[in-house]
Amino acid sequence: MAAPAYDIVIRNALVATSTACFEGDVGVSGERIAAIGHGLAQGAREIDATGKVLTPGGIDAHAHIAQLSGGGLLNADTWESATVSAACGGTTSVVAFAAQHQGMDLAQVVADYSALAAEGSVIDYAFHLIVADPTEKTLKEHLPALIDAGHASIKAFMTYDKVRLRDEQLLDLMAVAREKGAMVCVHAENHGMIAWMAKRLVERGYVDPKYHSIAHPRVSETEAFERIVRMSALLDQPVTIFHVSTKEGAAIIRRARGEGLKIFAETCPQYLFFTKEILDRPGIEGAKWMFSPPAREPKDQEALWRALELGDFQTVSSDHAPYAFDETGKLMAGPNPDFRQIANGVPGLQFRMPLLFDAMVSKGRFGLSKFVAVTASGPARLYNLPNKGDIAPGLDADLVLWDPKRQVTLEDALVRDKTRYTPYAGMTVTGWPETVIRRGDVIVEGEALRAAPGSGRFMRRKAGSCAEPTGRLEAELDPARNFGATLL
Amino acid sequence: MAAPAYDIVIRNALVATSTACFEGDVGVSGERIAAIGHGLAQGAREIDATGKVLTPGGIDAHAHIAQLSGGGLLNADTWESATVSAACGGTTSVVAFAAQHQGMDLAQVVADYSALAAEGSVIDYAFHLIVADPTEKTLKEHLPALIDAGHASIKAFMTYDKVRLRDEQLLDLMAVAREKGAMVCVHAENHGMIAWMAKRLVERGYVDPKYHSIAHPRVSETEAFERIVRMSALLDQPVTIFHVSTKEGAAIIRRARGEGLKIFAETCPQYLFFTKEILDRPGIEGAKWMFSPPAREPKDQEALWRALELGDFQTVSSDHAPYAFDETGKLMAGPNPDFRQIANGVPGLQFRMPLLFDAMVSKGRFGLSKFVAVTASGPARLYNLPNKGDIAPGLDADLVLWDPKRQVTLEDALVRDKTRYTPYAGMTVTGWPETVIRRGDVIVEGEALRAAPGSGRFMRRKAGSCAEPTGRLEAELDPARNFGATLL
Amino acid sequence: MAAPAYDIVIRNALVATSTACFEGDVGVSGERIAAIGHGLAQGAREIDATGKVLTPGGIDAHAHIAQLSGGGLLNADTWESATVSAACGGTTSVVAFAAQHQGMDLAQVVADYSALAAEGSVIDYAFHLIVADPTEKTLKEHLPALIDAGHASIKAFMTYDKVRLRDEQLLDLMAVAREKGAMVCVHAENHGMIAWMAKRLVERGYVDPKYHSIAHPRVSETEAFERIVRMSALLDQPVTIFHVSTKEGAAIIRRARGEGLKIFAETCPQYLFFTKEILDRPGIEGAKWMFSPPAREPKDQEALWRALELGDFQTVSSDHAPYAFDETGKLMAGPNPDFRQIANGVPGLQFRMPLLFDAMVSKGRFGLSKFVAVTASGPARLYNLPNKGDIAPGLDADLVLWDPKRQVTLEDALVRDKTRYTPYAGMTVTGWPETVIRRGDVIVEGEALRAAPGSGRFMRRKAGSCAEPTGRLEAELDPARNFGATLL
Amino acid sequence: MAAPAYDIVIRNALVATSTACFEGDVGVSGERIAAIGHGLAQGAREIDATGKVLTPGGIDAHAHIAQLSGGGLLNADTWESATVSAACGGTTSVVAFAAQHQGMDLAQVVADYSALAAEGSVIDYAFHLIVADPTEKTLKEHLPALIDAGHASIKAFMTYDKVRLRDEQLLDLMAVAREKGAMVCVHAENHGMIAWMAKRLVERGYVDPKYHSIAHPRVSETEAFERIVRMSALLDQPVTIFHVSTKEGAAIIRRARGEGLKIFAETCPQYLFFTKEILDRPGIEGAKWMFSPPAREPKDQEALWRALELGDFQTVSSDHAPYAFDETGKLMAGPNPDFRQIANGVPGLQFRMPLLFDAMVSKGRFGLSKFVAVTASGPARLYNLPNKGDIAPGLDADLVLWDPKRQVTLEDALVRDKTRYTPYAGMTVTGWPETVIRRGDVIVEGEALRAAPGSGRFMRRKAGSCAEPTGRLEAELDPARNFGATLL
Repeated sequence: MAAPAYDIVIRNALVATSTACFEGDVGVSGERIAAIGHGLAQGAREIDATGKVLTPGGIDAHAHIAQLSGGGLLNADTWESATVSAACGGTTSVVAFAAQHQGMDLAQVVADYSALAAEGSVIDYAFHLIVADPTEKTLKEHLPALIDAGHASIKAFMTYDKVRLRDEQLLDLMAVAREKGAMVCVHAENHGMIAWMAKRLVERGYVDPKYHSIAHPRVSETEAFERIVRMSALLDQPVTIFHVSTKEGAAIIRRARGEGLKIFAETCPQYLFFTKEILDRPGIEGAKWMFSPPAREPKDQEALWRALELGDFQTVSSDHAPYAFDETGKLMAGPNPDFRQIANGVPGLQFRMPLLFDAMVSKGRFGLSKFVAVTASGPARLYNLPNKGDIAPGLDADLVLWDPKRQVTLEDALVRDKTRYTPYAGMTVTGWPETVIRRGDVIVEGEALRAAPGSGRFMRRKAGSCAEPTGRLEAELDPARNFGATLL
Repeated sequence: MAAPAYDIVIRNALVATSTACFEGDVGVSGERIAAIGHGLAQGAREIDATGKVLTPGGIDAHAHIAQLSGGGLLNADTWESATVSAACGGTTSVVAFAAQHQGMDLAQVVADYSALAAEGSVIDYAFHLIVADPTEKTLKEHLPALIDAGHASIKAFMTYDKVRLRDEQLLDLMAVAREKGAMVCVHAENHGMIAWMAKRLVERGYVDPKYHSIAHPRVSETEAFERIVRMSALLDQPVTIFHVSTKEGAAIIRRARGEGLKIFAETCPQYLFFTKEILDRPGIEGAKWMFSPPAREPKDQEALWRALELGDFQTVSSDHAPYAFDETGKLMAGPNPDFRQIANGVPGLQFRMPLLFDAMVSKGRFGLSKFVAVTASGPARLYNLPNKGDIAPGLDADLVLWDPKRQVTLEDALVRDKTRYTPYAGMTVTGWPETVIRRGDVIVEGEALRAAPGSGRFMRRKAGSCAEPTGRLEAELDPARNFGATLL
Repeated sequence: MAAPAYDIVIRNALVATSTACFEGDVGVSGERIAAIGHGLAQGAREIDATGKVLTPGGIDAHAHIAQLSGGGLLNADTWESATVSAACGGTTSVVAFAAQHQGMDLAQVVADYSALAAEGSVIDYAFHLIVADPTEKTLKEHLPALIDAGHASIKAFMTYDKVRLRDEQLLDLMAVAREKGAMVCVHAENHGMIAWMAKRLVERGYVDPKYHSIAHPRVSETEAFERIVRMSALLDQPVTIFHVSTKEGAAIIRRARGEGLKIFAETCPQYLFFTKEILDRPGIEGAKWMFSPPAREPKDQEALWRALELGDFQTVSSDHAPYAFDETGKLMAGPNPDFRQIANGVPGLQFRMPLLFDAMVSKGRFGLSKFVAVTASGPARLYNLPNKGDIAPGLDADLVLWDPKRQVTLEDALVRDKTRYTPYAGMTVTGWPETVIRRGDVIVEGEALRAAPGSGRFMRRKAGSCAEPTGRLEAELDPARNFGATLL
Repeated sequence: MAAPAYDIVIRNALVATSTACFEGDVGVSGERIAAIGHGLAQGAREIDATGKVLTPGGIDAHAHIAQLSGGGLLNADTWESATVSAACGGTTSVVAFAAQHQGMDLAQVVADYSALAAEGSVIDYAFHLIVADPTEKTLKEHLPALIDAGHASIKAFMTYDKVRLRDEQLLDLMAVAREKGAMVCVHAENHGMIAWMAKRLVERGYVDPKYHSIAHPRVSETEAFERIVRMSALLDQPVTIFHVSTKEGAAIIRRARGEGLKIFAETCPQYLFFTKEILDRPGIEGAKWMFSPPAREPKDQEALWRALELGDFQTVSSDHAPYAFDETGKLMAGPNPDFRQIANGVPGLQFRMPLLFDAMVSKGRFGLSKFVAVTASGPARLYNLPNKGDIAPGLDADLVLWDPKRQVTLEDALVRDKTRYTPYAGMTVTGWPETVIRRGDVIVEGEALRAAPGSGRFMRRKAGSCAEPTGRLEAELDPARNFGATLL
């Protein structure tokens, strides 16, 4: 008898790529997709996918894992716990952070994070480099070398006391990114407005979690967006704006892209599924839904969905920030802290994919290809992961087989990360990832996890022009811009 | 020896789908694509595609072929000549027109055009139904039946004396389209402005072809766009705006889509490659480049490319309108007519694909996937051709194998349609379609055409919601709109 | 004893000009204002204005009076009744219409209206010339001669079956206006949308007055605004858009003015004080509030006030259209007609000034100077009435003395025009015109009217560039526009 | 013989108020205008103004005079030299600065500046309070007391190393202004962009004055405008944006005003009359035209004129900053400093009025009333000077009599301030101020100056709502804004 033609054949699935859906088979050889078609030859392993949906494995391009900062808050997760939770939800790649704080040596930071990830991760991983201390050494030595070593994206904060950069520093960082061809990602909120509002609120006794929302007025987002858009224009440098929360913010991004600027954007499930009322609970309970920027209004949710539909945003990431709802996490500051002392962020690696499958596919908002686009192919292009994010011959065999009929009510007991809670508890989703394949290995089968810690692999990303350029420099937009760019 | 696994295997091509490019093989069985992969099994016929690029066959969704109108101008082409020219340029499907004029019976019109196409076409075809006489019978009987019979799109003119519809008529037509789920396409220019300008120009002796451009002021396009966008909003009816020519027009479309309106758009090579100066030649020569709207300015070309880049436009069509440059076509009105009497339109089926391959791929403007998107997958989605426009298992095996290095200078001698001239004469393109496959048949090989007249097939298109909805009705945009839609 | 220095001195008033308010005296000699100051010398007549406010007499630049049309609807008013009602409300000048219908000789129309006004008017008057039949004779002979004779503004309709102009006709008319330096005023609504909506509504049994509002969707206003703005751009011709009703419409005007286009605008009290709910009454009662465009939403009211505040609109006129609520007017079509057969329009000459005084001054929205600007100086500049509209030496002594404390509840019994009803019945205003002076004659004193029919005078208006140009031709906006303008 | 009725009568002038022009007489009694009219009674002094134009005295609301800062640059002017130059150009009121630097006691600063002005000024004066060190004492004690004492406007810098405020500080300052009803004026440029550009330029050897322009990219202005507009929105606080230089900046202001925000704006002659090429001269010569932001492009000049026309800007001020072109001023840093070390600013008090008279009136751009609006009545309203800025009974008799035919070529020899140069040298203007009256005193007659140092008077300005409110808080714009405002 002939040797099997493929290691695995997933047969008779509804195969969803970022542009097409068809019934057929997918053959996997080694770590790669070998063929797609009808009536493919035999596989060493055959998976009957009749009635199932096959999508690319999810890519979550925004996650805080195993934060190493000496002082301040600690995340609950290890690389193992975080990536196990991701894998169980159908995510096979993650772009996490290597986070420099002030005074830290960036090269050492990356080495430390890399060691932890290499040891613990069950899915493939990469890092955005957070630069909080842009010294001469960081900018001229470490950063170029790290970009050359495959770290093709940088993150900067425009708010948060200890990590935010001043405008000059941000420009310095963007100049290095431009020279090396790296993407710059930003947390864009106006620090002054937030600090001023929060101080006034607390002085007047408004300390509950719900005031977190008031402390982040809508204009604090739009102001920072307008600022970073102009910095991008000045240097002709691609920028991804993280976690867009407002309608006006989405409009700024749409306008900038229409002008040919290299602006990209992400939103997160928490902005699509929550509104600001979620914070308004008795006592400290609301802390579970504290993240920055905060959830907004129904009109904003509609605007964010539309921005995804129109392609103004390229990805939906989790912004996974795992703080347990106890004294090790959200309640670290004591039982009744004011809202400023509560850690910002929610866990999200695990349920991003099912939540979006339910909203986009099962509820019929967009269809499967758009689901693939925002969870996998979009982030793959945005962050230079050419082997990831779609179903095509030669790509990594990162695949998720979904039962599109299965209904699951999310609850804390299902949580696999170390926060042990989910902000989405109580929501029922239709569609569930049953089998997850990472580079040809079946790592999740039903409830069982079959991946060893450390089996995930570092994704070396080549810098260079971003994969989906929005535009060229438009000289008429700003004559001085050309000159600005020549200063780089 | 085992039977071949496929009828054809195209091996070792650079395969370009609308989202991915990879080196590999494509297997064809019968009329369909059967598999895509690496090391596919043997085909009855093997095509070595090393160093070649394989794309989907082109879909040209805007072509005037074999115009039947009793009086007035006649096109030069037969269905055979037009579709042979298309096939030689890598286009395997065409959406042409069945054109009602006033007093004509729409059902008979469609029957007549269908008979000609069935007899002569060498590629697959469908029709947009031009409605110029929206009588009760047309609207209530013929049109619904024709849409049910697979004609899922309608075209209306907002200008041209004998065919244009008044606003009420246009709304009547859109109301039928909405009820049946058909797309409405429009030639959107303000008739009054053009007629007024032309009359004044001719009265003053400005009769040369170059005044055609002056007679179509930019605002005549933008005015009509604003009008049709609001009609679309009023009825919640999808509309495709044909042949966008101006930067301001593109901006109106972008704005409308951002508001969630169901507006789609096309541009044509003549707007991407020409500016208005092209008309300014001695004597009547400029008539070769007379089309409506006219070519504009360099800033408009930039805006049109950007609109394609951003997805504001979904397709580039030829608007093929074959008038020979002699007394049977452009010069019918006599040797020195005023510009109003010269037939509007240029031939374009043949060179649309090579021109765009050169500009988008060879010259590096966008890359292969975007080329596929605007020439094939875009129009397939926009006009409900689910079996066409991409490379995926199960789709029709409409394929083009390109020599990406071959340079060809376009000239009249190459022209296969009956106009015997091309407005692009003198331009040199890099990249040439060498082999063209239509539903599994190799119909072009080098210079040889191997398809019989009548071998093209009618593409029955299911009406229903357009394949790429831009948005839902946004109640806050216009409260009365909901009510308007309920009147349908 | 010395002769009195002035014929009248109004002493110790709070004098309000369009830019300043001060306590002082105003001296009148003959028909003119002779001096403004403190402690002016003696007048033959002294009016003690302590505690009173003195403003310029109102100019109402939009009123239908004594409509002469053979068939169709008839207004209730004579020139005497209409202008008496105006005078009693503090209005001393009116720009009414000389309305050509199809087949009418424009010169004769103007002669007829002029004769009636000369005989009956108690206030000064002028005409906008309504052109509904732009024949060669009308355009080339009558219109230029009439403009030369002091009729410096023309009105055109974009809707209404028997009077509306097609786009070409409108351009022809605007071309004459431009050559002669006349203003063009338009009723800008999309006829097709309205006709289509109304027909569908009535077919489905929606015949009550409230469906009048649904039949005029918001986009029917904005569409027509976008169209006329582009025609204005094409010909570089000043245009005043009448009775703006929507927020989006106001935004179009603001945008156009920002681009340097010569667009001016008016709104009316019915849009500032009513919303669409006003139409929703049992039976035919709602007919009292039927006017076109209809009243809109609270958000629109806010936008209209802001447009006045920002100077985007230059005037508030009444659009006085006097149809009695009986079988001679609103109910002419029978007791239960569908809404299409009910005459459109409301009486408004009498209460425009007190309503605006109350809203703008007594309720503190803007202050006295803005009240003067929108009721008097604004229309004076817009329509070339250089002797009218403000309080300055040499201007006509058209003055109103207000009791700013007096409260009056508007009711039908107060009505002086022949409709015998007011749509504002039940509203209480603070501030009332007690004494009205027209060219130095006291024509209203308390309840008494002292002006003879025919004592009003025709205001010959010089054509020429509009008094408050918004901008110059901006070449970059539209290169073809220059050419378009040269065709004039 | 009877006593004269007035102290002065200016007879038979073309009197220009901010809204009207008429031939007539103006009577002055004491410090005030007593009457305006025809044939006024006799004055003790009669001035024959036949053929002359009479306007209000100019108000220059932006001037740096007698800067007291210990370190750093020194202005050339004393209060006497500066105000003499102003008076000779037809300016009778000035709003200068009392400039706190870091570490200075604001109350003392104001006392010091007040003493100098009281001693030297020949025209009336007020102060904007520059706050560079917003300590608790400054904000809670000094500032409220100073506002109560008649200093109703505050200025803040968003750029310049030693004086700029961080966003939180700016909000603190605006909160005090809002509580007290004071206007906040800002120099709005993005500090980080400018510092970054300048540093890079100088590092690469680009040190000449012309690089000053490159160092201030257009986006550095628009970024800061977007930021301050949102701060204004957050706190519902009126803000005047100083010296607008770009088309995009003007568009931001127009947009904000259209949204109902309380944004006001100024531009200066240097932006209306110069473009960036002015800096490009051999050696250090260009330093004479170095000011911030720099001069821009012709398209910007057009946009600034249009913003004045449309009322988006309320005033044209000089931004008088008197640095002599020698080692005491512009060249203080040495013969070949890099552009960062050259003092920014140009002298302008003297020629602002003639330059604008020539451009607006003699060259026919707008007419006299608009000239009065932007030079006198506009700043009077904006900064709460109710007795100033127009010609009306009761207002201060600040008057300028112009010879509208006189042509003067500006040159350094005419300069009366201590810089001894004018950037406008070589320009010829038509229209010259011949007689200047300040509160009833003739202080300039031809070449003769008749005012004693110290005869100018402090203008105590009442805080309170700004005189020309653009809008009310629009709740839908930003729900959180209301909350923000309640924190004040």
